[in-house]
Order: sequence, then C-alpha cells, then structure tokens
Amino acid sequence: MKKSLGNKTIIFPYPVFVVGTYDKDGKPNIMTASWGGICSSAPPSVAISVRKSRYSYDNLIQNKAFTVNIPSVENTQAADYVGIYSGRNEDKFKANNLTPINSGIVNAPYIEEFPLSLLCKVSHVHGLGVHIQFVGEILDVIVDEELIGDNGKPDIRKVNPILFDYSSRAYYGVGDFVSKAFVKVKDS
Amino acid sequence: MKKSLGNKTIIFPYPVFVVGTYDKDGKPNIMTASWGGICSSAPPSVAISVRKSRYSYDNLIQNKAFTVNIPSVENTQAADYVGIYSGRNEDKFKANNLTPINSGIVNAPYIEEFPLSLLCKVSHVHGLGVHIQFVGEILDVIVDEELIGDNGKPDIRKVNPILFDYSSRAYYGVGDFVSKAFVKVKDS
Repeated sequence: MKKSLGNKTIIFPYPVFVVGTYDKDGKPNIMTASWGGICSSAPPSVAISVRKSRYSYDNLIQNKAFTVNIPSVENTQAADYVGIYSGRNEDKFKANNLTPINSGIVNAPYIEEFPLSLLCKVSHVHGLGVHIQFVGEILDVIVDEELIGDNGKPDIRKVNPILFDYSSRAYYGVGDFVSKAFVKVKDS
Repeated sequence: MKKSLGNKTIIFPYPVFVVGTYDKDGKPNIMTASWGGICSSAPPSVAISVRKSRYSYDNLIQNKAFTVNIPSVENTQAADYVGIYSGRNEDKFKANNLTPINSGIVNAPYIEEFPLSLLCKVSHVHGLGVHIQFVGEILDVIVDEELIGDNGKPDIRKVNPILFDYSSRAYYGVGDFVSKAFVKVKDS
C-alpha cells in the first residue's frame, strides 16, 4: 500500500556540502547545506540553496564566489557544528580547528582538512521562496593526493564521504558496492 | 599534498533520481538524473537538470510536471537501464516490468515498484548551459507504507536507497550510521 506524506522535501540521499565564503572584512566562514547538487556538465556547475537570513548569504552576494567542501567521516562533527552555529558570532574555522586556504582562483576559502573542495564562481542567482539558489561554475576541484585511485579519480572508499538522512536527522557512511553503472543490458 | 583536478563535476554522493513524465501522446517515460537535489524548503522544491536532446525534455516543457522516483537497491538495474536507453525507441516502463501510476495530482506518472516518489509541478526553468534546470514544487510524496519507521517518516534502512559514484561509475548502498545531526556541541 502507498501512503501520502504531503508536500515534504524527502529524498535519499542528501549530500553534505560545507560552503566556504569570505565576509565583507575578509573573515572566512563556513556553513552546511544539504539543499544542492550538481546542475550542469558544461560549464560544470553546482547549485546550493541558502536562506537570506544566513551570514553566508551576504558573503555570496558580495563576493560572487564560494567553495563546496565535501566532508569525510572524520569531518562529521565539524560539518554538523557549522550547520548549527552562525559566523556572525564566532570564527567557525577556529572553533573546529580548521584551516582556511585561499586558492587564488576564487575569492572564497576552502578547508585544508577536508578531502575534496570545489572552487566556484557564482554564475546565476535564483529566488525560489525562502531559499535563494546560487549556481556556481566549478573552476577547479582540489583533492588530497593520496585519495586518488588507480583511475586517476578520487576513490570513494578513500574519500570516505558522509550522506545526510533528513528523516532520522543523522549522517551515514557509504555502504556496499551494488553494481557498475551504464551496464548495457541489451548487449549482455 | 593537495592536487588540482581541473573543472570537473565531482562530488560525493550523488542521488539517483528516476524522473517520470508523459509524452505528447500520453505515453509514460522515465529517465535517470543524478544532476539535481532539493533546492527549497518553502515551497518544498526539487531541482533536476536535463539536456535538451533528451526525450523527457519536450515532455517536461509540454506538461510542466514530473515525478522523482527514488530507487532501492532492488531497483538498481532498472534505474541504470533507463539512464542509458531513450524513450523515443521503446516503452521503458514495459522494458523493466515497471508500472506507471497516474496520481491525479500532477500530469506525470510515478513508478509503483519504487519505494518513494515525489509528485512535482514545474515552477521554474533555468538555462544553465548544456543542461536545463527544472525546479519542481513538490505537491506530494508517496511512499510504501511498510517503509515508514517509528517516527512516522520513511526509514532509510527500509527504503534501502542507492547512491551514484561518478568517479568509478558505480552504485553503492547506504553504510554505517555515523552520528546524529544537529548535535549541540556547546551544550554537551
């Protein structure tokens, strides 16, 4: 039997994006966003949604730049923390012993201690209701060299990322391999 | 050491969205999209990105409605298949022994055999390059009743969803519980 749950934002899984920006005084800030995802292949782009009330919102409008930092299991506590507290009241990098790095490529800091970071220039801003969607063109991806696998790409087991579950308000790791993608069923 | 990978669409994890639409003759179609995510809380909305060349693109423009169907591990082969082949050439529901259901709420079919479906009305269309982003207001969420947990919400273990890994072109399940979210570190 199917049951209706009403108009809710339920999917599985959500990513955990830790978004880096500078404020008007150049202070680095980070916030967590699970409303987002890749949105274009060319130009390669990622979308994040941010409420106007967030400290990061003004930073995004002013600098038109952000980073998306992907946490590993070891970064879970920091990723959760920066989704709760505001950069108006504290330096969230310092509070979590994290190091902001200015890549020189975009005017936004990435997190040295996180495995993977996307450096993005804001290309579109869309008002969608209580959230404003920022589309960022991905100018570069920065990864810890030891996390690259045999195929030259970041290895999901080495990156060891987390995902967010909205229903139980919890983080989970990546589980078992299920199957290869793009399996041409007809040819097999 | 950090290494630059260039301007690529690399994140962890990606969702696997199987998008349902009707074509101009009312034939139901499904395609897989991993470029997307929740993008607004109010109105509750989800974004998907689709190339103009896709059969689903015209369906989306014409009917301004779609469903997002979340596959479980058991639905992996079907989810992969409908991301490879085009609805121009075949009925992808029939090819995968799937049943299209018209909810009567939006003019798009959802998949009976998938655990969770979002019924969406297109609210915004954004050209982002090779992909067009469709933002859908979520009018209802349909779930298999036996997958609802003690808190009244879909249980991630019962739904047993998959995620996509772009680097290794593979699907994975959900792994170990890592921690609760929204843990107020300062108060503990």
